[in-house]
Parts: sequence; C-alpha cells; structure tokens
Amino acid sequence: MSWRIDLGSTARRSTILGGSGSISVLEERAVALRHTGLRFFVITDVNVRAACGDRVSDSLGAAAGKDVLTMPAGEATKTVASAAVCWEWLAARGARRDDFVVALGGGVVGDLAGFVASTHLRGMPLWQIPTSLLAQVDSSVGGKTAVNLDAGKNLVGSFYQPDLVVVDPELLGTLPAPEFANGLVEVVKCALLDDSDLLESLETQAALVRCRDPRTIERLVERCVVYKTAVVEDDEREKGQRAVLNLGHTTAHALEVSLGYGVLSHGRAVGLGLLVALAVSETMFGLPAEVRKRTESLLLALDLPTRAELTAVSTLLDAASRDKKVSAGTSGFVCLKALGRPAWGVDVPPEVLKAALEVIRL
Amino acid sequence: MSWRIDLGSTARRSTILGGSGSISVLEERAVALRHTGLRFFVITDVNVRAACGDRVSDSLGAAAGKDVLTMPAGEATKTVASAAVCWEWLAARGARRDDFVVALGGGVVGDLAGFVASTHLRGMPLWQIPTSLLAQVDSSVGGKTAVNLDAGKNLVGSFYQPDLVVVDPELLGTLPAPEFANGLVEVVKCALLDDSDLLESLETQAALVRCRDPRTIERLVERCVVYKTAVVEDDEREKGQRAVLNLGHTTAHALEVSLGYGVLSHGRAVGLGLLVALAVSETMFGLPAEVRKRTESLLLALDLPTRAELTAVSTLLDAASRDKKVSAGTSGFVCLKALGRPAWGVDVPPEVLKAALEVIRL
Repeated sequence: MSWRIDLGSTARRSTILGGSGSISVLEERAVALRHTGLRFFVITDVNVRAACGDRVSDSLGAAAGKDVLTMPAGEATKTVASAAVCWEWLAARGARRDDFVVALGGGVVGDLAGFVASTHLRGMPLWQIPTSLLAQVDSSVGGKTAVNLDAGKNLVGSFYQPDLVVVDPELLGTLPAPEFANGLVEVVKCALLDDSDLLESLETQAALVRCRDPRTIERLVERCVVYKTAVVEDDEREKGQRAVLNLGHTTAHALEVSLGYGVLSHGRAVGLGLLVALAVSETMFGLPAEVRKRTESLLLALDLPTRAELTAVSTLLDAASRDKKVSAGTSGFVCLKALGRPAWGVDVPPEVLKAALEVIRL
Repeated sequence: MSWRIDLGSTARRSTILGGSGSISVLEERAVALRHTGLRFFVITDVNVRAACGDRVSDSLGAAAGKDVLTMPAGEATKTVASAAVCWEWLAARGARRDDFVVALGGGVVGDLAGFVASTHLRGMPLWQIPTSLLAQVDSSVGGKTAVNLDAGKNLVGSFYQPDLVVVDPELLGTLPAPEFANGLVEVVKCALLDDSDLLESLETQAALVRCRDPRTIERLVERCVVYKTAVVEDDEREKGQRAVLNLGHTTAHALEVSLGYGVLSHGRAVGLGLLVALAVSETMFGLPAEVRKRTESLLLALDLPTRAELTAVSTLLDAASRDKKVSAGTSGFVCLKALGRPAWGVDVPPEVLKAALEVIRL
C-alpha cells in the first residue's frame, strides 16, 4: 500500500511518497539521475546511521556521487555551530546548486539539514527521509527548518519545502519506545484538529497502535500527513491558519523551559499541553469536558503521561507569554471550539491559563 | 527628483524608493507604524554609524522602539559567527516576527543583515538602506543575501526581497573615493548589459561622474536600479537570465582568490573581469573589439585600473572553473554577443580564457 501527495501551491513544489518499502524510490531516482552527474550529500546522526544508514547509502549507490556526514545525535546538535559544520562540509566537497541534500533522521537532523539545504548556495534541492514517527507525521512535512540559539529553540530557520519526502514506516522498526510515544502525541493532536473520525479510530485501535502494528501505523501516518499538508498548502508561511498546528505547543514549550530542557521530552510536553489547551477551550469556548476526558484516556492507553510536577507556575506563565510563535498583539494560543474546529490567535487571560494548568498537576 | 519601483512578481513584494532626500521616508513610516507597537532593529557598522547613523536613528525616533547593533566594518564581518551575534542580539531583545530589521550600510552589512532577517524567526520584515554606491546600484537590490564561509565568499545565504529599499544619493557624501570607484564598476557593467544609451551617457559624463555631481549620480543610480529590477523580476532565483548580472564576475572572483582577498578590491576586480569577458566574447561571439576599447577608456576616465599583475594564471584558471555560480555541466560564463545583448552559461574553453586574460596583463 503506497501513497503519494503533491504540494503544488507552496513556494517550492513538494512530493511526499509514503507506505512500506517506499524508501526503494531512492534507488530509482539515483539511477534516473545518474547520467546528470548530480551528487547526493546525506546528513544523518550516529544512531540513525547505525540503524538504517547502510540501506539508504546502498540505495543511492547508482548515483554519480554520494557522501555522508554523521552528526552527534540529540537536540544539542541543532545549533548554528552544527550548521556551520554542514556548510563547510558541503563547500569542501564542492557541492553544486543542483546537487541534493538528503536529510536522513528524526526531527533534529531534518530541521538542521533542511536549514543547511535552504541556505547553502542560497538553496539546494532537499530530500527528507524521516526515521522517527514524530518526524514522519510532523517535522518532515510542511517545510519548516530550524536551529536553536542560546536564547531559545527554533529561533533561526526558514520555510523551505523539500523536493521529496519519503515516509516509510519500515524505517521505524528500531525506534526506541519513548521516541515512538513522542510521535503518537502528534497523531493525537491531528485527531483533535481534524474534522474526521481519526480520534475514534485511535481510540478503538489503541492496542494495535501501542504494539506498532505496521498496517495500523501506516494508515495513521498517512492520515496525519494528508491533514497537515492541507493546512500547509493553505498557509505555508504561518500567517494565520497554519498556527492551529501549534495546538498544545504554547504550554509544552513553557513546560520545557520552566522544568529545564530534557526533563520532559518534547512529545510528552505536547501531550500535557493538549490537555491544558482543551481545559482553556472549555473556559473560552464552552468545549465539552468530554473531549478532554477522551484525550486523557487515549494518552494513558498510549503509555503517555497526563500529569506533571508543577513547581514554578509563575515561571511557566511567563514562558508561555514569551513563546516565540506569538506575533505582536496576540497571545497566539490555539483552542478548540469543538472537536475538529480549532481557533487560533486566542488571547487567553493569565488567570484562565493558570486555572487550566491544574488539570495536569500531579 | 524622487522615483519609485515596485517589484510585484518576486516571492516577496518589494518597493524601492530613490532620489535625494528619500531617506525622509523612514520618519513617515515610523510615525505611521507607531500605534502598531512594532519595533526597528538597525544593524550597521562603525564607519556608517559615524557617518549617518544619527540621521537614520533620529528618523526612526517616532517608532514604538528602536535598537542599533554596530558591527565592525569590512568583509571580515560577513561570517556565520557575525550572523550568530545578530541572531542572539535580536532574540535577547525579544524581536518578534513583525518587527523590522533595518540594514544600514554597504554590501557587507546589507548581505549580513539581510541573511539574518531572512532567517530570524524564519523571516522578519527587512528594510535596506544602502550607504555605498556599490550597494545602491547592486547588492541592496535583488534580494540576494549572504555570508562567507572559510571555503569561499557568499556560499551561504538566501533569496529574500527587502520590503523596502531606500536609495538616497545624499548618504554617499562621506564615501571614500576608492569605495565610490568600486560602485562605478557596477554602473559600467549595467551599461554593457543594458540595451540603451547608458554607455554613451557615461562616456560623455565621465568628468561629472568622477567629481560626483549629485544630479548625474542620482540619474545613473536610478537607471542601474531600473535595469537590475527588470532582470530580477524575470528570474528571481537565478535559474537563467539573472546570471547575466555576473558579467565580469567569474574572472573577478578568480583574481581575488588567486591574488588573495583584499589585494584587489572587489570592484576593481570586476572592472578587470569585464575586460576579460569582452575579450572572451570577441573569440566566442565575434563581438567587435571596439566595445572593449570603449570600456577600457571609460574605466581609465573613471580612475579605475585596466591592468593587473598576473602571476599565477593556472591558479586563476582553476579558480574560475570552481566559481560557485557554476551549475553542474556548464561553466556559467557570461559574454556579450553585442552591446546590450548578453549570453549566459557560456562554456568557455580554458585556452580561450587564458588568451583573454592577456588583455589585462600589466
């Protein structure tokens, strides 16, 4: 079962190929491009290289040239200094404007290599091969690239659609359980935003999802990507509607900042953020509490936390108000008016947010 | 005499305002934006700050907020490390997505601040206030931003149209003579590319140009900007025709690399590169030698060199073949088929280039 989505209305056209075994397209493309003399520059990390680097590297074997840069794994790699390492690496190898940057990895590699591709020689062709569930359903689709600054996460980056995204669930085989759970949170987020029966499917298939049944995962990934690409096509540069994808993220970022990065994984923070956003939505829009109860049960069924230590609520509120997604004059908070009906740019009074935080207090 | 050009077909709309005193528009805009709470982040260098920083800073006095970052002057500032300084500075001051980055300076500041604006929070509004003749006629128009790597110049950057460019000849008052002459080379380049009587105007007005007659300079700047914007609108991302703007640059970059950066200024290198490109055009396209003779006389009349020490021709030829503007499979050389009729992507045999270099040998 393979699928394909073409984004045509974005600044750069993009094709997403999905399904088990879709990674084999790399070999086809490498063969097709062989006579052009174009080369492939793969950027990956040590963990991914060990898990599936050979498979991808072999697939590109027919290309006129290929080279692999292996970065350390983890968020600490997503820096300006790492970008400089990638840029100098490309330059030293004489990368040309038409050569390909291939981002092989999870969100960190995808964001970093995407930023590098978007800026090296003012933009090179980019292929994204996401190897984590989170990257498959979220970061590899939509064309946001980024690196972190000392001052905060994702503060520097670009909007740059990859020419090709290959979303192959077979690459998830070796993904550690906590990483897998992180990705599931984005699936839950999509289910809340999407006006379809995705939430119900998740609820009935939670056991299959938890044991990573390949067909189930494949279908979930496809549905999330279809939903996300529709939103991105309408609003590539996040002038408005695309902001709905930040559901749960204002609180998540604030939790990460106030607890210290790494204490809570980003996925788990977003899961908690979703519950807070739903509680806020109850106050602001009269969303039935049932939506939050269902979400809470679903998160538990997927082995995800629904409570956290809240030691510094004032720090947390400060952090939420500083969240970078904020534009001048709005708090940029995303709520649900009803299941599948998000509202963005909601101006949430601090006391409402403070009260809502209580629903996740341990 | 003021003028205005609107670029509408580029990825981001851009307005260029020109003429003596056009800088006063800053004050009008600052007043108009005051109620929005939007702030201005001016990036400049020490020399420009001394020459006209107060004037610009005062103009923005009515804004809700303004801040100035003063970088060291010179090409050595155009690095990834400098970009990181700018990014952290913006982040520390809580710059938001709708706030303005104002690039106040010559090509180095414009390229650096433009790159920073295009990537901070994935893109902030950008105003370019070029203060050198070279920046007024060339780098501030067209939306190319860049920083240098250890491996070479301008290897990292973006295509990012400024929202506003203010081209005020009054800002050129304190420009040192060698800097002024560097800018004149770009005017000569435009005259060769443009299918109009610009070359003739330059020839008849060389004395007025050399003594910087304000009205003459103002008209020349306008004509160059009009020519350049037309080319950029047709081909923003340099897929084809925009490459004509690189006339003279392949040899210029090679001269700079083989002699060592700083030995020959970029403008002077381009002047020599123009003569080489014309000599190549004579061999490849039968361009009459008269065009090169006229250009040589004009460069001399403008106090620009027409000869250089050529010590390492083989290094120079290597450097020319590695020039970053090269796409796979073409040498990317720009020639003239006739005055005002450029050809780009010309595959020039090394022996032709080698022979052409003799016309500039001291």
